[in-house]
Order: sequence, then C-alpha cells, then structure tokens
Amino acid sequence: MENRNFIGVDIGGTTVKLAFITYNGDILSKWEIPTNKEGNGSSIVEDIAASIKSKQEELNFSHDQFIGIGVGAPGFVDVGEGFIYSAVNIGWENYHLTTALTEETGYDAWLENDANLAALGENWKGAGGQANHLIAVTLGTGVGGGIIGNGQLLHGANGTVAEIGHMTAKTENGRACNCGKTGCLETVASATAIVRSAYDAIEAGEKTTLQEILRQNETISARDVFQEAAKGDQASQSILDEVIHYLGIAIANLAIAINPTRIVIGGGVSQAGDQLLNPLRKVFDQNALKRTSQAAEFVIASLGNDAGVLGAAYLAKQKSGK
Amino acid sequence: MENRNFIGVDIGGTTVKLAFITYNGDILSKWEIPTNKEGNGSSIVEDIAASIKSKQEELNFSHDQFIGIGVGAPGFVDVGEGFIYSAVNIGWENYHLTTALTEETGYDAWLENDANLAALGENWKGAGGQANHLIAVTLGTGVGGGIIGNGQLLHGANGTVAEIGHMTAKTENGRACNCGKTGCLETVASATAIVRSAYDAIEAGEKTTLQEILRQNETISARDVFQEAAKGDQASQSILDEVIHYLGIAIANLAIAINPTRIVIGGGVSQAGDQLLNPLRKVFDQNALKRTSQAAEFVIASLGNDAGVLGAAYLAKQKSGK
Repeated sequence: MENRNFIGVDIGGTTVKLAFITYNGDILSKWEIPTNKEGNGSSIVEDIAASIKSKQEELNFSHDQFIGIGVGAPGFVDVGEGFIYSAVNIGWENYHLTTALTEETGYDAWLENDANLAALGENWKGAGGQANHLIAVTLGTGVGGGIIGNGQLLHGANGTVAEIGHMTAKTENGRACNCGKTGCLETVASATAIVRSAYDAIEAGEKTTLQEILRQNETISARDVFQEAAKGDQASQSILDEVIHYLGIAIANLAIAINPTRIVIGGGVSQAGDQLLNPLRKVFDQNALKRTSQAAEFVIASLGNDAGVLGAAYLAKQKSGK
Repeated sequence: MENRNFIGVDIGGTTVKLAFITYNGDILSKWEIPTNKEGNGSSIVEDIAASIKSKQEELNFSHDQFIGIGVGAPGFVDVGEGFIYSAVNIGWENYHLTTALTEETGYDAWLENDANLAALGENWKGAGGQANHLIAVTLGTGVGGGIIGNGQLLHGANGTVAEIGHMTAKTENGRACNCGKTGCLETVASATAIVRSAYDAIEAGEKTTLQEILRQNETISARDVFQEAAKGDQASQSILDEVIHYLGIAIANLAIAINPTRIVIGGGVSQAGDQLLNPLRKVFDQNALKRTSQAAEFVIASLGNDAGVLGAAYLAKQKSGK
C-alpha cells in the first residue's frame, strides 16, 4: 500500500487544515478552508468533502489513490466510536463525525483529539523521533498536550486524556481558569497567561520596559515579554521565572508518571527556544528523579501547524492497518 | 493452556512471596521465604528455585504443569530485558534476574517492578475490575504506584514509570525525601510521613490525644492518627487534612493526564477506608476536570499482599502468550 496516500484533516475553531500525505509522511499538498460555525457547524463536513474533491481534481488524483481520512477535532472525543461528545468552539455536541465524513467522502475516517494528533505528528515526522514514551506540551493560547506510552497515544476513558493545561500547577492563590478550577497550568504558562502577567505588572506600577512596548504597540505579546527579559528587564524576567517554575514542576510530575525519552515543547511560546528550554530543564531536573531526568530529552516541536494533519495521516495509517 | 498454571514471585526487602496460580487467577498455594540479602542477594534466586521445587513435590505438581514465572522486584527494572538496573534494598545492581531464574528453574521468566505488578494484580483479580485506564496508588512506608493505559501497564524509558511517590506534591516548604528532592508526595502521604507529622505536632506542643497514645504505646502509627481524628482530635484531623489535600491534588493531576476509569488506593494507609476515600474524593473533584471526575471511580485495593504474586502471574500469562 506504499504507493497510496492519506488525507489529514485538522479541524480548528477558525480554519480547517487539510493535506494529502504519502504513506511515508511526505506532504503532497496542504491547504486550509474557513471553519463555518453557522448552524452549530452543520456544514463543516460538507465543506471538507467538497474541498477534498476539488483539490483531487485540481491535482489529478483519483479517489482510490487515497486509503482514508484521519481527522483531529478540538474537545472531548470518543476515539473508538469516532464520536464527538462536545467541541464547544465549533458547536458540535454528541456528533458522529467519522460517520458523517465517510458518508460525504466515501472514505473510511478515524478521529482523535487535535492536541493528541499534534503529538502523534511530532512523533512520526517531527521532534519526537518515534519515541515509545513521549510527552508533548503545547504552549499557545491555552496549554494542551498528548502522551505516548508503550508506543501508543494514550486514549483515556472519556476524551480528557493529556489535558495537561488543567493540571493544578499553582496550589495557592491561583488564577481562575475557564474550566472552572483555579491555578491550572494554562493560567500560568499559556501565552495568554504571560500577557496577563505583563498587564498585571504594569497595573501594579512596576518599573518595566513593557510599559513602553504597550505605549508604542497598544498591545503586549508573550514574545515581547521574552524579548524584554532578554534585554534585561527585571519585571519581564520575573514573569518568565514564575512561568518556568510552575511549568517545570508540572512537566516533571508528569514525567515521573510516564518516564518519557522525549519531551516536546510546542506552540507559540516555544518559539522562545533556548531562552525557555534551558531554565525549564533546570527546574525539571530539580523536580524529577535523577533517572527520569537522564532518560528525558527536551526538544522544541519542529512541525509547526503541520503537526495536526501529519498526526491525522499517521492515525489513518495505523487504524487502516494498511 | 487453560489447564496449566503460573508461578508468581514477588521479591521484597524482607520476604519473597510465592504462589502457584491458575490460568484464571485462582491461587492454588501461596507461601513466603525470607529474602537472604547476604552477598548482595546472590543466593536469592537459588532459594526461590529450591522453594518452588520443594513446594511442587509437596503438592504433587509436575514441572510441566506450569507455563512460566512472573517476577516482581523493587527498584528500577528493564522490562524487555528482564534486567535489574538497581534494587538498593536487596543489593542487586545490573543483574539479569530472569536469565538467572530460568537457569535455576528451567522456566521462562518475565520481570516487572513490584509496584507495577501490584497494580496489574489488582486490575486482574482485585479492585481494578480489568480497567483499560487505571491509576494505582500504594500508601505504605513509601508511596508507590502503577499506571495502566490503553489496557497495558505503562513501562516507561528506564524503569522509573509511575513513581508517584516522587511527584512534587508540596512546592513550598516541603520535607527532604530519600530521593534527594524535597516535597515529594511520599514525604506527605506515606504512613511514615503521617507518623512524622504526629511527632512534629507533639513536639510543637499542640494539644492532642496522640500524646497519650505515645505515652501508652511508646510509639505512634498512622492508624492511631486516623483513629484519634475519628474520635475528634483536632491535631490529628489537621494532619490528615494536609495529607488528603496534597494527595488529592497529586492524584487529580495524574488523572488529568491518564483519564482513568478506576483509581485504586492500596497499602496500609488505605485501611482507613471511607475516612480516607470520602474527603480524598472531594479534593480530587475540586482539582480534576469535571469529565475526568465523572469517568473515575475511587476504590480501595482488595488483594492485600496477594496483589504482587497475582500481577506476576498475569504478567507471565500475557508474556507467554499462552
């Protein structure tokens, strides 16, 4: 079956990313379409099917040059059933996504949570290096993740596996999280949290060059905080110190459970590279068992936005057994 | 192969537990021998082999009524190789245990860490109920554990998987742990930690009935602390509140990663039953995602000291493919 291909689909709240991907994980073509959330997302599957068909025609692919579709969606999913319990960003509730996709496209389809698929994609073709034991942490607007144990993506009981962003990182005086809890890792280590800490510092009247950034740009980004810290701004450095302290403990606690060979850090915040990774590694080493530290290599995710579609294609490859 | 049996061996620092166990997990016979640590444990395997042989003779079993040996040992093990990196309590370093066992007994042998095997045993015949996603936490002298994901015991990279006792539970002002870190769950939630907190309370001059217990018995046990708390002693209750606070957060953080259907609490401290489980569940619910809580049932381990040999037999059953 090595001359046939897979279709990777990564459904997000704003866009649906699609790709034709070879058996060996090369991307033949990738593109995206807007996510139409009208009518609780009722036309999304039709849009995907039409887009796949027109791209196949454009590129002169026949229907049977593809084995099937792997699809990632945000929210809580039932992997076995291809069923979405709830994808709040999109409007789906109790929706049998894979059945709908198969009906519209004629292809078999397999579903996973989008963050889990990004981990799978990084492990197949990116920074994971096909590890049998891996933790992926995505530091973006929120904090997500995926866990591979014994060579398999962990699925969990009801679609909440590897929700790393909701580990309680700050047990005292934590911020309220969207999930209803307080002190979640997401309220400390996401880009959103870093920006919020920047505004908090300014409001508290701290002496910081972030104030000048805000005046010039009328906004502050997580990247600004890293840049000002690198230039020597103490307030920015303090913000990052706290991020790295709690993030390092959370990842160490997870690593003690999973005993991974690789820890892949992705998402927008990971673009800080060694400025993030070096101090993170230090906190990690202080909080992990020595042997756990010895086994675990930290790496920055390398696939960017392609991780999801690649993971989706790999899912289809695994599940189709072809 | 259903008419043949397995030999379960659970090697501890004080005794080696052994059992003959049927294909379906019924214990035909169980016994124990002392762990001879002389010469860095060099005679342990011979002792085990001799003991198996004499028990078979005693009970009129032939050699080929058994398929093989599952064995659990403390410390860091390489599951694939049947190799012990380090078992400090016994004296083994870089020891190829399964090869030695096979040479002495003539049986195939398979190795796992002892805490992991206890989890496997509970899941096969005890409180786990054959869950596909399970966390087992053992609250004894130390705190150990095992994790089952996607129906398999997680193995990890180098034998430190599910070392739950060394998750950093108390990020500020934690006690020093034997592992070299501070604030490990083991320094908060083990029987040893509970006893230490009792002595601390007495030394600090707190008004507590534990003082009278100490005077009468010349010692204090974790059980005493539970009993005095149940009778209304505030200092004892405060000790337990702290245990349950940090234990609940640690288990919730782990459950957010694993998304289990069962959480099995074992070890001596678990004998407190609902006095432990009910408040623990409350802290867990506050710190886990709602869906994670909905999926996860808390249960007390039911196999006691038999969990290890049963898990060992199950390991042999799985690995022999018979």
